[in-house]
Amino acid sequence: MSQKPSIPKGTRDFLPNEMLRRNYIFDTIQSVYQKYGFSPIETPAVEKLSTLTGKYGEEGDRLIFKILNSGQFAQKVNEEDWNARDEQKILSQISEKALRYDLTVPFARFVVQHQNELNFPFKRYQMQPVWRADRPQKGRYREFYQCDADVVGSDSLLYEVDFVQIFDDVLSQFGLPGFTIKINNRKILAGIAEVIDASDQLTAITVAIDKLDKIGQQGVLQELSNIGLPDDKVQALLPIFTLEEDNRKTLSKIAAFVDKSEIGKKGIEELSFVLDQVDNVGLKQGTLIFEPTLARGLDYYTGAIYEVVANDVDMGSICGGGRYDDLTGIFGKEGLSGVGISFGAERIYDILEQLDLFPETTEIGIDAFFVNFGNEEMNAVLQLAKVIREAGCSVDVYPDPAKMKKQMKHANNIGARYVIMLGKNEIASKTATIKNMENGEQMEVAFDAVVNTIKKITNE
Amino acid sequence: MSQKPSIPKGTRDFLPNEMLRRNYIFDTIQSVYQKYGFSPIETPAVEKLSTLTGKYGEEGDRLIFKILNSGQFAQKVNEEDWNARDEQKILSQISEKALRYDLTVPFARFVVQHQNELNFPFKRYQMQPVWRADRPQKGRYREFYQCDADVVGSDSLLYEVDFVQIFDDVLSQFGLPGFTIKINNRKILAGIAEVIDASDQLTAITVAIDKLDKIGQQGVLQELSNIGLPDDKVQALLPIFTLEEDNRKTLSKIAAFVDKSEIGKKGIEELSFVLDQVDNVGLKQGTLIFEPTLARGLDYYTGAIYEVVANDVDMGSICGGGRYDDLTGIFGKEGLSGVGISFGAERIYDILEQLDLFPETTEIGIDAFFVNFGNEEMNAVLQLAKVIREAGCSVDVYPDPAKMKKQMKHANNIGARYVIMLGKNEIASKTATIKNMENGEQMEVAFDAVVNTIKKITNE
Repeated sequence: MSQKPSIPKGTRDFLPNEMLRRNYIFDTIQSVYQKYGFSPIETPAVEKLSTLTGKYGEEGDRLIFKILNSGQFAQKVNEEDWNARDEQKILSQISEKALRYDLTVPFARFVVQHQNELNFPFKRYQMQPVWRADRPQKGRYREFYQCDADVVGSDSLLYEVDFVQIFDDVLSQFGLPGFTIKINNRKILAGIAEVIDASDQLTAITVAIDKLDKIGQQGVLQELSNIGLPDDKVQALLPIFTLEEDNRKTLSKIAAFVDKSEIGKKGIEELSFVLDQVDNVGLKQGTLIFEPTLARGLDYYTGAIYEVVANDVDMGSICGGGRYDDLTGIFGKEGLSGVGISFGAERIYDILEQLDLFPETTEIGIDAFFVNFGNEEMNAVLQLAKVIREAGCSVDVYPDPAKMKKQMKHANNIGARYVIMLGKNEIASKTATIKNMENGEQMEVAFDAVVNTIKKITNE
Repeated sequence: MSQKPSIPKGTRDFLPNEMLRRNYIFDTIQSVYQKYGFSPIETPAVEKLSTLTGKYGEEGDRLIFKILNSGQFAQKVNEEDWNARDEQKILSQISEKALRYDLTVPFARFVVQHQNELNFPFKRYQMQPVWRADRPQKGRYREFYQCDADVVGSDSLLYEVDFVQIFDDVLSQFGLPGFTIKINNRKILAGIAEVIDASDQLTAITVAIDKLDKIGQQGVLQELSNIGLPDDKVQALLPIFTLEEDNRKTLSKIAAFVDKSEIGKKGIEELSFVLDQVDNVGLKQGTLIFEPTLARGLDYYTGAIYEVVANDVDMGSICGGGRYDDLTGIFGKEGLSGVGISFGAERIYDILEQLDLFPETTEIGIDAFFVNFGNEEMNAVLQLAKVIREAGCSVDVYPDPAKMKKQMKHANNIGARYVIMLGKNEIASKTATIKNMENGEQMEVAFDAVVNTIKKITNE
């Protein structure tokens, strides 16, 4: 049975060169998360369907990949539903499990399920794939990684400062020439709605101003009219669309704007603390900007809201996050405040590629490659290969005594840094001929000195 | 809506302490694979159902988790099949995708699909989860990791030597006090069947003697009778059940036994080469034993067969593998010989735990923990925390100025190695009070010297 092999739409294979680059991104993010005291967890790819359903809205529910029950799935379905081919009703009878849609809901489930085993505030990071039955398009996949970090069990603003530093630390390590960390506070948005006497329309207002990047200020104002906001209130909102020359001045302006709102003042106070402390520690390559229109459309944020964009690159946001006061409430555990962020690893990959920022260490390569002259020389080759590996270097031996040209071509293809030749003469004189593949130089090195030669060169 | 949260049967959450131990296992295996010239790849969790179906036998097909088509899955099903509730026929109409069942078939698909992008011989490792709708029981999960390495595109015996060294290298690094790497060659099994004139029953014979560990020699002999092997042939097989005092002697005995079989002699020749070269390079903690009854029940092995067991531990095999001559044939690419192995990470975890072999580095911990005295001290705390993090250490700051006792308890719970106190007095004198949590000692350290103090101690 022969098939032309392929993979499902929206999924990807990763070849070695892509893996090295992806691992570089994941490793960098992970090492920074660890420096800030976050610990790794993992949850299963497969969750109960009931855990996921109803958490992502109707559209989200539709995009969850459902797993068919094993065995005689059809036999248990109610006669009437089956005959009507009522998919909605049949679904829950033939599927009890689904692939996770994000890492946030499984994390909320995890925290509630393991609450007695965790130390609160609990700081975890999680870097695993998620699956969405979205229509695949450029940069949007059905299987992709999320790289999240969250703290639950504390409403301390110190964590909000930490996350700004984490964004800055990671993206500076990637060598991004410039990036903007946008920050806002949901309480400020609530205050703004309150002072124009439109608190009941907060969500609709948030959704509208969240479109600023896409439809511009005029578009947003139109949208605000469309949702029924009277003209004078729309006009009253104008000041929030203009950033002042620095965060302090924007803050003063918005502070004056929400001065009559308790929740607005609280938001200003929280944001001030974060801005002050970020000023205190300083950032590396990033710029922190207070944007009173930053909303991220997400209803569940209750405090800080973050979004990060790379400057001078035509790409949406590459990181995001915020505070949520009741993530675990849906699973029966109330009152656990949390704050968390996520790195868009796939987009970061595209940017690093576009800007040619991947370091040399992410290139395919092997430290030492032995030419195969035949079985007679093999005892000496394998002994020396072993010694080099024990020194921590990677070693390959060509599998057959093929023509030299073929062997050298393979050495080149797999990125060999040094080719080692051990022929009869070399073995007799206990020296190896080592060819530096970068500059083509050859040298004769005594067996005893081979390891140090390879190590010295590969560490340069 | 409140639910008591839980996860599907046979799946697991991993808490930080388990993650650190699991990562230690994966990292160790990965670093050895890399030293032997293997490169990482990843394939999607979700494959086309047609890629997987028919590769694992009828039972395997049943254990594959199928994914329900999105949208109106029921509408496309043939009327007759629907009304008959014929699951077999309905399945292919409502499911086109499935979760991978192992890493081998996706790898074969990958090699054929990407053959023009790969350098052959292609050496890859892959460490990803797989899913099986098996009945969960102790040590058997529905989602678990496989850690495979394979070479395709060469029948060189050098790789068979490499894999013995890899088993030895990894398991020695884990500190296993003793383990046995069993080796055989499928051609020897074929030779044995041939000389007793039972080549047509090779598979049945293989399956029978593969049960030796479970049912003993008498059981196997009975089983051989049951499959219709005449008594004289069963008796003729007796010599293969007894190991001689060393591999050479067993090899001589079996060589004499299969002397009339071309394929048997070829198997002996191949195995001799591997035994010789392993003797040449030497093993660390492992012992290589030629077991002519080792069969691993798998029909697709064509050359070397491996199985590794830990000595003095009541656990099945912890590694396995072998050579297969036509893995990619099912996907239309003939004649690519391959050889590969797999580490049973889950069982290795259990053994390391049982024997208390996890190193200290896998314990939960954080290098430095700052006590929170209040916002007034926070500027100095965050500045110093930043400096310590820049030196590569992990740092946590308690989120609120809670009672000292509560803060110290948390520091203890999260495994803080050093607790740093920066109160008003300390800040005024530019010194930090540092408490070593292991021995309880306290010291006063100038701000400038804090980093070196923490680094020196944590590197000890």
